[in-house]
Amino acid sequence: MNKTIRILGIDPGSRVTGFGVIDVSGREHFYVASGCIKTPPAAPLAERIAVIVKHIDEIIRHYQPHQAAVEQVFVNVNPASTLMLGQARGAAIAALVMHQLPVFEYTALQVKQAVVGKGKAAKEQVQHMVVQMLSLSGTPQADAADGLAVALTHALRNHSLGAQLQQGALQVKRGRFQR
Amino acid sequence: MNKTIRILGIDPGSRVTGFGVIDVSGREHFYVASGCIKTPPAAPLAERIAVIVKHIDEIIRHYQPHQAAVEQVFVNVNPASTLMLGQARGAAIAALVMHQLPVFEYTALQVKQAVVGKGKAAKEQVQHMVVQMLSLSGTPQADAADGLAVALTHALRNHSLGAQLQQGALQVKRGRFQR
Repeated sequence: MNKTIRILGIDPGSRVTGFGVIDVSGREHFYVASGCIKTPPAAPLAERIAVIVKHIDEIIRHYQPHQAAVEQVFVNVNPASTLMLGQARGAAIAALVMHQLPVFEYTALQVKQAVVGKGKAAKEQVQHMVVQMLSLSGTPQADAADGLAVALTHALRNHSLGAQLQQGALQVKRGRFQR
Repeated sequence: MNKTIRILGIDPGSRVTGFGVIDVSGREHFYVASGCIKTPPAAPLAERIAVIVKHIDEIIRHYQPHQAAVEQVFVNVNPASTLMLGQARGAAIAALVMHQLPVFEYTALQVKQAVVGKGKAAKEQVQHMVVQMLSLSGTPQADAADGLAVALTHALRNHSLGAQLQQGALQVKRGRFQR
């Protein structure tokens, strides 16, 4: 029997941070939870960061994931937007590392390749595959779907994860797998 | 007698985060501590963020500041550098808000105007004034001096802070002062 690994996927954004929690057992994936964290856009930065940190903290305490997967963000043409996105992403990762969660990063290209099978897939195709792979009865909100997609990417790219961890053949070190 | 307010100043950087702790009593300022947090540049992002969060957490637990002042960063011409700087800054602010510290932000211009008296002051002039104002016996490392400078800026721009807080005339709400 494979050990179940719970993965928290995070898609950071300057206004909305999507998240998705899945369970992975061997090659099977199960939906646990998903949603999005919205920050008040007019509030001071510290307040917006507090919202992100507080919610991720609650999600971790409630769902107790073993690992976290975070989507790498595009650098925007607007430097101020890039800075804001970076701050939101840094705060999200800070909340993860505070719980000693191993953090894995995936680019949008890696997510599309893993979930849809091609790097040029449209956003809707990613959402469609998330619904299929997790046997969801409805389509989740776009940011929540992105959170689930990056969690699935981590599972698909490491599909012998559970078995390896069980055998003790794999050690998580510095947030990366080493044999 | 004025109540003493302890301020933690943070100057975030993608490789080095400077910090300074000062005590403010009325119009007097006293040096408490300063230093810099260096992140391993070749390490994965999550590890670098963990270093920043862990050290700021330790500084807060050890020195128990009442308020935090964080320097606003320049957006770099290089979008990847801007993103990295944003991530480091977001992580630092996340560590502050986790301790419910009120966070105040100041631009480099505001720091120079408050500490030197003119917005076009050179970095060396800021360091010189930090040494003078805190009666330091030596010149602190540049990033540590910047941490102290932003803490001093918060003190100088709110020099009746201690007295007002003592009288209960000032309420800290949403990280900003309101009467």
